[in-house]
Amino acid sequence: MKAYKYRLGGSIEDLRLVEIDIPRPGPGQVLIRMRAASLNFRDLLVVSGKYPRAQQETIIPLSDGAGEIAELGRGVTGFAVGDRVMPAFFQSWLRGPMAPADAASALGGSIDGVAAEFCVFDAERVVHFAPHLSFVEASTLPCAGLTAWNGLNGPVPICAADTVLTLGTGGVSIFALQLARASGARVIVTSSSDAKLDRDRQLGASSVVNYRREPEWDGAVRELTAGSGVDHVIETGGGGTMQRSIASTRRGGWIHVIGLIAPGTIDTVHILLSGVILRGTEVGSRDMLKALNRAVANAHLQPVIDRVYEFTELPAALRQLEAGEHFGKLVLSLD
Amino acid sequence: MKAYKYRLGGSIEDLRLVEIDIPRPGPGQVLIRMRAASLNFRDLLVVSGKYPRAQQETIIPLSDGAGEIAELGRGVTGFAVGDRVMPAFFQSWLRGPMAPADAASALGGSIDGVAAEFCVFDAERVVHFAPHLSFVEASTLPCAGLTAWNGLNGPVPICAADTVLTLGTGGVSIFALQLARASGARVIVTSSSDAKLDRDRQLGASSVVNYRREPEWDGAVRELTAGSGVDHVIETGGGGTMQRSIASTRRGGWIHVIGLIAPGTIDTVHILLSGVILRGTEVGSRDMLKALNRAVANAHLQPVIDRVYEFTELPAALRQLEAGEHFGKLVLSLD
Amino acid sequence: MKAYKYRLGGSIEDLRLVEIDIPRPGPGQVLIRMRAASLNFRDLLVVSGKYPRAQQETIIPLSDGAGEIAELGRGVTGFAVGDRVMPAFFQSWLRGPMAPADAASALGGSIDGVAAEFCVFDAERVVHFAPHLSFVEASTLPCAGLTAWNGLNGPVPICAADTVLTLGTGGVSIFALQLARASGARVIVTSSSDAKLDRDRQLGASSVVNYRREPEWDGAVRELTAGSGVDHVIETGGGGTMQRSIASTRRGGWIHVIGLIAPGTIDTVHILLSGVILRGTEVGSRDMLKALNRAVANAHLQPVIDRVYEFTELPAALRQLEAGEHFGKLVLSLD
Amino acid sequence: MKAYKYRLGGSIEDLRLVEIDIPRPGPGQVLIRMRAASLNFRDLLVVSGKYPRAQQETIIPLSDGAGEIAELGRGVTGFAVGDRVMPAFFQSWLRGPMAPADAASALGGSIDGVAAEFCVFDAERVVHFAPHLSFVEASTLPCAGLTAWNGLNGPVPICAADTVLTLGTGGVSIFALQLARASGARVIVTSSSDAKLDRDRQLGASSVVNYRREPEWDGAVRELTAGSGVDHVIETGGGGTMQRSIASTRRGGWIHVIGLIAPGTIDTVHILLSGVILRGTEVGSRDMLKALNRAVANAHLQPVIDRVYEFTELPAALRQLEAGEHFGKLVLSLD
Repeated sequence: MKAYKYRLGGSIEDLRLVEIDIPRPGPGQVLIRMRAASLNFRDLLVVSGKYPRAQQETIIPLSDGAGEIAELGRGVTGFAVGDRVMPAFFQSWLRGPMAPADAASALGGSIDGVAAEFCVFDAERVVHFAPHLSFVEASTLPCAGLTAWNGLNGPVPICAADTVLTLGTGGVSIFALQLARASGARVIVTSSSDAKLDRDRQLGASSVVNYRREPEWDGAVRELTAGSGVDHVIETGGGGTMQRSIASTRRGGWIHVIGLIAPGTIDTVHILLSGVILRGTEVGSRDMLKALNRAVANAHLQPVIDRVYEFTELPAALRQLEAGEHFGKLVLSLD
Repeated sequence: MKAYKYRLGGSIEDLRLVEIDIPRPGPGQVLIRMRAASLNFRDLLVVSGKYPRAQQETIIPLSDGAGEIAELGRGVTGFAVGDRVMPAFFQSWLRGPMAPADAASALGGSIDGVAAEFCVFDAERVVHFAPHLSFVEASTLPCAGLTAWNGLNGPVPICAADTVLTLGTGGVSIFALQLARASGARVIVTSSSDAKLDRDRQLGASSVVNYRREPEWDGAVRELTAGSGVDHVIETGGGGTMQRSIASTRRGGWIHVIGLIAPGTIDTVHILLSGVILRGTEVGSRDMLKALNRAVANAHLQPVIDRVYEFTELPAALRQLEAGEHFGKLVLSLD
Repeated sequence: MKAYKYRLGGSIEDLRLVEIDIPRPGPGQVLIRMRAASLNFRDLLVVSGKYPRAQQETIIPLSDGAGEIAELGRGVTGFAVGDRVMPAFFQSWLRGPMAPADAASALGGSIDGVAAEFCVFDAERVVHFAPHLSFVEASTLPCAGLTAWNGLNGPVPICAADTVLTLGTGGVSIFALQLARASGARVIVTSSSDAKLDRDRQLGASSVVNYRREPEWDGAVRELTAGSGVDHVIETGGGGTMQRSIASTRRGGWIHVIGLIAPGTIDTVHILLSGVILRGTEVGSRDMLKALNRAVANAHLQPVIDRVYEFTELPAALRQLEAGEHFGKLVLSLD
Repeated sequence: MKAYKYRLGGSIEDLRLVEIDIPRPGPGQVLIRMRAASLNFRDLLVVSGKYPRAQQETIIPLSDGAGEIAELGRGVTGFAVGDRVMPAFFQSWLRGPMAPADAASALGGSIDGVAAEFCVFDAERVVHFAPHLSFVEASTLPCAGLTAWNGLNGPVPICAADTVLTLGTGGVSIFALQLARASGARVIVTSSSDAKLDRDRQLGASSVVNYRREPEWDGAVRELTAGSGVDHVIETGGGGTMQRSIASTRRGGWIHVIGLIAPGTIDTVHILLSGVILRGTEVGSRDMLKALNRAVANAHLQPVIDRVYEFTELPAALRQLEAGEHFGKLVLSLD
C-alpha cells in the first residue's frame, strides 16, 4: 500500500509517498481502508518540525481521516466489515478529563497518522460517524470539528440563549460557527474579508465585523450585545487578538484559548478586572468525538469543504493551506 | 377598564368581566396596556378552585400575557413608553434558585393576573420580549415556554448531542420540542394521534411514537436510541407515564417532572436500579425568562397558536382547553 | 490457597471454604495477596440468591477487599510488589459516566470477588489506598465508602455551606456522615437508638433525631434548618422513609437514592410540588475510588469498624450483619 | 456620631475623624451600630487614590464591618433590634451572577463604607453572621473571607479530594487555607518566611514551600502532587507568580486570579499548552456571604486576627497593613 512519510525537522519537500506493507489488525484491533484525510494548520507545524509534541524521527502524517473497516482483529465487538468510521485524534484519551500521558498519543504528530491507504487502530479508539456524511466530509471532524465542540462544551457549555464570538475563518472557527448555530446560539464573526464574511452569513452568522474596517472590533462586538459582551469566545487568534477578545466578553464569560498561530502576552490585571475565564482548550476525547458525531447527525450539519485533492497531491494541498486563502477544509480523497 | 374576576372555589361560569379603575404605576413601576393573554392547563385548576397555591378569595385570572408600556412610574430606568414586554410568572423570583416565598407570587393564582386591559408591575419584574414575536405569540412564553426552557436547562442542561423525549402535545411539550430542536438535540415525541404526530414532525421531531399502537412505547424509545435511552424527558404525563419514562431514559439521564395532570406513584427501587435523576421542575425566574427570549430570538422560534379568541371569550377559550383537542396555544387578543 | 465459594440460590450455610490454585497474573495484571475483606448488606442478598445482577452459578463472594501486590504481570507499570491496593467494585467502570455493560462487572456478585487469599486483577482496575489506613480499614472503602462519596459528589456536589441528612447507621450512612463532615457540611442523623446517635455525635453529627421518639422526624429536620430543609439526603431507607426525606429537603435539594433494603412507592406530585431532585445512585468508578482515597487521606478519616473476624468466620460475620445491631463495618482479616 | 472621611486622591494623612449626624433608617432599611471593622489591602488603594472604582470625592472608608441592629425601618422583616449582622461588600449584588452595575456598589470605595459608629443599609443587603464569632472576628469576612470563598466555590467548586495552592499569607490566602481545609482539601502554602509557614501548618497546611529557599517553587509543588499538579490556585500574587502558578496546576485545574498587588503579563501559549483555566475572581454576592457564614459556622472556623486597634487608630492600623509584616487581619474595635 501507499503511505506518506516525513522526516522530523524537514519541510513539505521532504514528504515521501512510499510503498509499505498493509498492517494487520491484532486482537482487539481493526484494519481501516482510509477513504479521505483532511488537513489542519497543525500539520504544517508537524511537517516543518515545529510541532511541540513530535516524538519519532519518521512518521506518517495527518491526524484526521475517515474510512471503512476492512478487517476485524480477534475479539472485536461493536464493529463490522464495511462500517464507516474515524479514529480519535488522541488515541489514548477515551473519556473523562485528559491525562498527561494522552498528549503523546496524537495521530500524525506523536505517533503515525492517517496519510496511508490502510491503518490499524484499537477498536475502542475508533468511532462510527454521522450517517449523512461522505468520507470527505467526515474526515474533517477529528481535529478541527472536535476542537470547536470541546470549546463550546466545556465545564459550562453554551446554551441556546448565548452569544458566541468566533475569530476569522480557519477550520476551527467555521466549525464553531456551525456548531454554535446548531446549538441555538447567536454567533458574531470577525474577518478581514467581506467575501468571507458573506460566506459566514450564509452559514448562519447573525452579525459580522470586518476588523480591517473596524480595527477596534471589541467595541463593535460590545455594541452588538447591547453593551454586555459575549458569553463565549472561540479564541483562535492568540496574542494578536486576546486583549480585544477579553474586552468583548461579559463578566463570567468564557474565552476558549485555541491554536498556536500567534504567540503574545496578556496583562493579569485585565483578567481580574474583566472577570472573564480563560481556558486552555485541547482537541478532545473519543467520547467527545462520539458526542460531536451525534450533534452533527442531529443537525444534519454539512462541513464546509474548500477543495478536494487526490491522495498523491498532499504537498500541493499543504501549500494551499500555507497560503491561507481557503474557506473551509482541504481534503485528500483516496477513492 | 375591563378585567376578569373569579371567586375562589367557583367554576368557569363564575368568571365575571367587570369594569374597574385603571391602576396607576407607583415609584419603580410600569403600567402595561395588555395586548394578549394565553391560557394554560393551570388556569383550569385555578378557576375550578383546585390550584394548590390560591391565596385570595377574588382574583384576576391568567398568568401569561404580553403588552406595551403605557406609563412609567417615578424612577424607572431601562424601559420607555411603547416598549413590548411581558411580566414574569413568579413576580418575586428574579434570579438564582427559587426561594420558598416565591411560590406565593405566581400571577393569576396567588396574586392578580393579566386578564385585564391594563396591569401594573414593578419594572424589575417585567422583561422585553424577542423582537420578531407578535403580542399573541409573545403571550405564550411566560408559563408554558419557560417551563419547557427550565426543564431543558437545569443543573445539567441539554446539549446538541442529546436526545430528548417529550410526551403528548400540550403547551409545554410543544415548546420543549421546539426549544430542544433549536438547541441541536434530537427529539422523540409520543402521542395517541397520528395527525398530531405529523404536526410534531413538521416542527422537527426526528421520531414519533403513537402510544395507542405501541402501548409499550418505552421499548420503542429504547430502540430509537440503539438501546441506550434518552438523555432528558420532559415528563408532563405524571403517574400514568412515569414508569415508562424511567424505562426510556439512560443511566444518569434526567426526567423533568412537570404538570399536575395525572397523579400516580413510582417504585423507589426503579429509581435506584435505573440510575435516572427525577427533578421536580418549576416554571422559572425572571432571568430565565430573559434567557428564553434570547433563545427564541436566536432561533426565530415561532410559538404554535391553535386559536385566537376575543378578550370577551375567555369562558369559551377555557372550555376548548378543557376539551383537550387543540394543538398549540389558545390566546386572547386585546387589540 | 483458600477461597470461599457459594452456589447461587443458596444460603449462608452453602458457603464453602475450599482449596484452589493460586491464580497467575497475565499481561497487564497484578496478583494481590488479600489481607482484609469487609461485608456489605449486598453480600447478604448475594448469598441468599436475591442479588439482581448475579450471573454465574458459583462465585467467590464479597466485593470489598484490600491487600498487597504479590506479583506483577508483564508490562505492568505504576505498581510494585508490596504496594497496598484495593480493587474497584465495578471492574470495567474506570472513569466518566457508567456504561450499561459496567453493571455486569461487579465483584462478588456478577463476577468472582475477594473472599480468597489471592486474587488477580487488571492493574488498571486497582488503586492505591490512603497511606494512613490499615488493611482492615482500607477494605471498607470500595462499596460502602464509595457509595457515600458518589452520593455526596454527584452532578452538584456538596459544599461546606450545606446541610446533609443521613438515615440510620448502616455502613453507607456512617461514611456519608464522616465524608460530609470532612467536606465542611453540617450533618443531621436519624436513628431509633440513642446509643447509636451518641456515636454519631462523636463522629461529628451536629444534630440527631430519634425517629422512635419523633415519628414525624421530617418536621424535626425542618426545624433544625430554620424551615428551609437540607441540601442533600443520603437516602438509604427506601420506601419506608422517602416521603419524609422529600419533606426534609429544600427546593432544588438532592435525594441520593441508595440501597435495596425496603421497597416502596412515592407520589409523583410530591416530586413536582417539593421541587427536589431524586437520583438513583450507584457505587462508583475507579477514578471516583481514587478521589475517595485522596479525600480520606486529606482528612485522615478513620473508617468505623464494629468487629474484625478471622477469614474462616465469614458465616458468623454474615449472621451478625443480618442481625443488624452493629455500628460500623464487619471485616474479615487474613493476616 | 464619629465617622472617618477621606478625600479622593489623598493619603493616610488626609483621613479625618469627624462628627456627623446618626443616619436614620428609611422604609426597608436597618440602622446598625457598628462594633468592628477590618482592613484590606484594597483600603490602602482607596485612601491613596489608586482604587479604580472610586466614584465620589469624599467617602467613609472601609468595606468590612460587623455590628448589631439598633433600629428597624418601616416594613423590615427577618431582623430584630440586637441582631448581629454584617453588610455585603457589593451592596447591589444579591444573588446569581454579577451584573456590570454591581461594581459601583462596593462599600468604602464606590459608596460610603463602615468606618463609622452607625450605618444604614437596606435590610436585604445585610446578613446574619455565624453565631460563634465575635464582632471583631465577624468583621473580617465580607471582603477577604468572601473572596477566598468565591475562589474556592466557582463554576467547578473544590471537593474533598482536591489539592489547593495558596500564595503567601495575606488575608485572602489565610482564609483560603482555612476554608479549603474545612472543605476537606489538602493545602500547599508558599511564603518567604519560615515563621509564617509554621503558622500555616498550625492552621492545617499539609505542605509548605519557602520560595526564598526554593525560587523554582512550581517544581516543589509538582513534586508534592506526585507530578500531577494542584486542582486550584488562589492566585493573589499577580504578574510575579502567575507563570509558576500555571506550571503548578494540573490540566483542567483552576487558577482564581485575585488581587491588584503586582501587575504582570502571561504568554497565551502557556494557557493553551498547560490546559489550565484562569478566572478573574470578584469578592462575591450577598447570597455567597450567607453561604460563607454557614460554612464558617459548620466548621467553627476561627478567623486569624493579628491585632485589634481602637476605632481612633485607623491611620496606625493602615500603616501596619502597609508594612506587610502581619499574619492575619487588622481590626478596629468600636466597643
